[in-house]
Amino acid sequence: MFQIRSDLALEIRELYKENTQQEIPGVEVEQKKQEFATITHVKVLNQEGSKIMGKPEGSYITIESPSLKKADADVKDALSQLLAKELVNLIPNKSNFKTLIVGLGNWDITPDALGPQVVSKVFVTRHFFEMYKKTDDPTMRPVSAISPGVMGTTGIETVEIIRGIVEKTKPDLVVAIDALASRRMQRVHTTIQISTTGINPGSGIGNKRKELSQHTLGVPVIAIGVPTVVDAATLANDTIKLVVDALSDQASKESEFYKLLRGMSDEDKYSLIKEVLDPYGANVIVTTKDIDVIITNISQVIANALNIALHPGIDLKDVNRYLQ
Amino acid sequence: MFQIRSDLALEIRELYKENTQQEIPGVEVEQKKQEFATITHVKVLNQEGSKIMGKPEGSYITIESPSLKKADADVKDALSQLLAKELVNLIPNKSNFKTLIVGLGNWDITPDALGPQVVSKVFVTRHFFEMYKKTDDPTMRPVSAISPGVMGTTGIETVEIIRGIVEKTKPDLVVAIDALASRRMQRVHTTIQISTTGINPGSGIGNKRKELSQHTLGVPVIAIGVPTVVDAATLANDTIKLVVDALSDQASKESEFYKLLRGMSDEDKYSLIKEVLDPYGANVIVTTKDIDVIITNISQVIANALNIALHPGIDLKDVNRYLQ
Amino acid sequence: MFQIRSDLALEIRELYKENTQQEIPGVEVEQKKQEFATITHVKVLNQEGSKIMGKPEGSYITIESPSLKKADADVKDALSQLLAKELVNLIPNKSNFKTLIVGLGNWDITPDALGPQVVSKVFVTRHFFEMYKKTDDPTMRPVSAISPGVMGTTGIETVEIIRGIVEKTKPDLVVAIDALASRRMQRVHTTIQISTTGINPGSGIGNKRKELSQHTLGVPVIAIGVPTVVDAATLANDTIKLVVDALSDQASKESEFYKLLRGMSDEDKYSLIKEVLDPYGANVIVTTKDIDVIITNISQVIANALNIALHPGIDLKDVNRYLQ
Amino acid sequence: MFQIRSDLALEIRELYKENTQQEIPGVEVEQKKQEFATITHVKVLNQEGSKIMGKPEGSYITIESPSLKKADADVKDALSQLLAKELVNLIPNKSNFKTLIVGLGNWDITPDALGPQVVSKVFVTRHFFEMYKKTDDPTMRPVSAISPGVMGTTGIETVEIIRGIVEKTKPDLVVAIDALASRRMQRVHTTIQISTTGINPGSGIGNKRKELSQHTLGVPVIAIGVPTVVDAATLANDTIKLVVDALSDQASKESEFYKLLRGMSDEDKYSLIKEVLDPYGANVIVTTKDIDVIITNISQVIANALNIALHPGIDLKDVNRYLQ
Repeated sequence: MFQIRSDLALEIRELYKENTQQEIPGVEVEQKKQEFATITHVKVLNQEGSKIMGKPEGSYITIESPSLKKADADVKDALSQLLAKELVNLIPNKSNFKTLIVGLGNWDITPDALGPQVVSKVFVTRHFFEMYKKTDDPTMRPVSAISPGVMGTTGIETVEIIRGIVEKTKPDLVVAIDALASRRMQRVHTTIQISTTGINPGSGIGNKRKELSQHTLGVPVIAIGVPTVVDAATLANDTIKLVVDALSDQASKESEFYKLLRGMSDEDKYSLIKEVLDPYGANVIVTTKDIDVIITNISQVIANALNIALHPGIDLKDVNRYLQ
Repeated sequence: MFQIRSDLALEIRELYKENTQQEIPGVEVEQKKQEFATITHVKVLNQEGSKIMGKPEGSYITIESPSLKKADADVKDALSQLLAKELVNLIPNKSNFKTLIVGLGNWDITPDALGPQVVSKVFVTRHFFEMYKKTDDPTMRPVSAISPGVMGTTGIETVEIIRGIVEKTKPDLVVAIDALASRRMQRVHTTIQISTTGINPGSGIGNKRKELSQHTLGVPVIAIGVPTVVDAATLANDTIKLVVDALSDQASKESEFYKLLRGMSDEDKYSLIKEVLDPYGANVIVTTKDIDVIITNISQVIANALNIALHPGIDLKDVNRYLQ
Repeated sequence: MFQIRSDLALEIRELYKENTQQEIPGVEVEQKKQEFATITHVKVLNQEGSKIMGKPEGSYITIESPSLKKADADVKDALSQLLAKELVNLIPNKSNFKTLIVGLGNWDITPDALGPQVVSKVFVTRHFFEMYKKTDDPTMRPVSAISPGVMGTTGIETVEIIRGIVEKTKPDLVVAIDALASRRMQRVHTTIQISTTGINPGSGIGNKRKELSQHTLGVPVIAIGVPTVVDAATLANDTIKLVVDALSDQASKESEFYKLLRGMSDEDKYSLIKEVLDPYGANVIVTTKDIDVIITNISQVIANALNIALHPGIDLKDVNRYLQ
Repeated sequence: MFQIRSDLALEIRELYKENTQQEIPGVEVEQKKQEFATITHVKVLNQEGSKIMGKPEGSYITIESPSLKKADADVKDALSQLLAKELVNLIPNKSNFKTLIVGLGNWDITPDALGPQVVSKVFVTRHFFEMYKKTDDPTMRPVSAISPGVMGTTGIETVEIIRGIVEKTKPDLVVAIDALASRRMQRVHTTIQISTTGINPGSGIGNKRKELSQHTLGVPVIAIGVPTVVDAATLANDTIKLVVDALSDQASKESEFYKLLRGMSDEDKYSLIKEVLDPYGANVIVTTKDIDVIITNISQVIANALNIALHPGIDLKDVNRYLQ
């Protein structure tokens, strides 16, 4: 059994289908098209699906919209609304429901700064509730937010920091925002993934203690991720596939070498490339030139969506009024 | 008895002396001049001194250097060395001594970003100790660092966040870096204050629970602060004094109005101005145009000093090699 | 005859009226209130008005809106529309009409970066016309844009740089965007001034050769300015006035000193304060803490307005689509 | 005859040698090793060399140092010194020799911002000479500097803007700083190229009028460039080569497909890949995560070198004093 690694559940399912011409067993997929976006719900229903996906059981919702990276205010509003609707379905409609928003990533490194930028823009209210000893408000619910930084700059596992804060502030829900890597350039800056299973940094074996999840934090964790880079090995892999396809027309399909290349699974090729690229280091990223502007735009979409979804008194009409 | 409010112990003592022509009882002052800086040790020895100063008993060390705001690499190195020496005197020389550096302030607001900028530049090592299960190293000691943000963007009291992290990571010392406000424009960007008593945000009555100190965190707290702004009321106050002085030569010193103005204590005048300025809001700051560059320079000086003071294997010669 | 110095025509007229209880001769003033803004047209009609104002004959249009500094998307759109309407009245409705937008100021210094930020956001099209040898297009007109920097970083008078570019590219109009200083804190970030007379840096005597105007560039120059700072002397001056007013109730109005203070003209007081503050240097600015965010918001309002006003095919509905 | 395209003369020569196992005729190469760097002088001596290189006759000096991307102050100083020495050899030692420094690229896009960041850091002096009508000074020479932006944001060919400024300010020399693309990831952030032939944006046929050179500006142009990105096609190309090499061991070298792949020239493969990648757009870049910090460091090295090389009164000891 092979294992496709990607931050996006959608991509794993896609690559699985390409390789096997069938759906992943134990995984349910539903898709709806909207004016500005395609929304796909991938549900990992049981252990079998979970094993193949390399992701815990739960819901993975993907909003795909090539317009996400645009500065168009109307489209941004529409996407905030779409995202807010999906979030509302996942968040209990209780007054005084407490949410902690966690912006993961390094704010000094642009493609990694999505989480911290969302945190700078959301409407935080927990301190008002504390100050005035409120337990209830018709227009808002208690929201707090933090960008803890990354282990390279803090020296502390992110989960340790968040666990400390969760114990002190006792939220009912953690929403974690993170920049992801995609396997496909086309998904970069165009895709938002919501998942009910939290975040698994590295998501390899033995990293259990590092994940941000109900398991480690004691409260449900919704993760919101946007791919902002492609890793170099992925790009090389995709390109080789395209080049081999292009060359195939010129080469005899019976040739040994061609068969060798075609016969390798995508994962084998990916591993080979990864190995070959190793000296370049994990520090190499593939992204777009205009990433500074795009991260600003997308973080606004997500912050607006969170403001709408978390506060009953905010709807799209006035949401920009609450942008920090 | 009157109360002068300032983030800088040095200023309070100075203003007290100006007003009363005597030293504050219960406060010891010592000054030494160096090539690039004047270093003043203000020791608040007892409750009487503490009451007048409005600051807890402890040591307040001020390094004053007009060159601090310059980009001159040699002077920056000299000041890092001076600051490191003062810190070394305050930090136990034990291997495996664990320090948590806390960068206070909002990284999106330039004059407030000093703490976060220092945190981005210090050399953190705690995760190496954790990963390799080290308890000891000849060249480094375990250092972690965090910029928690401010209550306006997190919704959480900073002390709650830090207390959570201190409980999880158990440092032996917290060093907190903060941008301060000065009463005098000349001190802005030219002064570093170290204190052994932690940080009292607002430092008014009833704010006890908000302070970052041994009292609230359970471990000693060293605070490092640099004034990056003057508050508007201060500037107005200083100016009025200068203008009244200038006008006095033209006015009869016997005049009632003159006597009224001269007769008011500085603190009364300051309060009056504060009240008058209220509609402008606390949001108004007085600073210098080149603050972006200056904050970068000063945060480098402080990060270098911390790297030298905390890690036995780092001295000035190689300190820039460890700048993140 | 006294001379009030301010970047804002509105303020000069206001201060004149306060001091003399009459309108400036040779100056016509008209005001209309709108939903989000008050618009004031100050027309300097002749030499007498020009002398008193310290500004050339021409139109000075001020849009005042406390909402300008807000992030509210709807209000921003409304203000862009208002500004666009005023600009349309000043710009000939000719196809192939060529405009050069000049962003004055230093992009590394936040309160000075308004012009450069507008330039990064406007929709430039001149190169399409050049590439395809177009002379005419139903939806757009040729627009170019440059941020030349300031003399301190270029070593060149800005007018020399712009004159060189005007000679090479032959625009029909220059629109120059600049950050201004206001006399009143309340105007900071809330006011847009359009003037048909260009820009006079320093605007003192002998600076004629430095101005950006039809006189120096050979084409009409429209200036758009927004106050982003108050100078320190102004703040001190305003405060003294408020404090003296507050104190007056306690002092006999017959006192000599009071009369001295009251008797001084605002300008005399301002000069005295300026002199007293001199050691602080011109580098001191008074602004608001959240200036980074506000400059971004206002530059978007202005860039949108320019896009609507300059390109017949762009209206408010799609204007954000053309934001760079 | 084939044509290798690269911004770096060194790379073209290297790839030529790899493909042909011989030196390029009409090109002289000399290499010296220093403590922190390898310096290579490539001289294109005649038309034949120029044709093969795709670069004008002239000198191309490359300083290669893996330490360039480090923050180490001592190494940065050593590299500034090395670069300054090479520049001094190219710049006439005349008092009152006027230099205009041009920072090419878009300051809003990090990997493109090298030129503008150097311009913000160099010591400009021309305005002092103008103000005091100096023609001569023992410590400094008249230097001006500008970052004109890129055609996408100005709507004007950069050469038109610079020509306008050259005509107005009459410098004796233009030094243009630009971010380059490399063919090899290892060269990114580790290489400085100086050339005496100016800059050819795109450098394809028909672009003659766009180049910044003595030909278009009327004064000599020295170009300083640093590769800050690899283009995606290059990365894919390099990887394919490595993968094919790795696979070859498993495949019969007699296979048709293998021969096809091996038989293609690098340039043919590059073109094929370029075509295949086209939908991704030219907007895709490959760089390193820490590019923000690295661009700051490298721009400091170059600014220091220019300050030392252009002003007789500045040497390494005090150079940081003149950093803006």
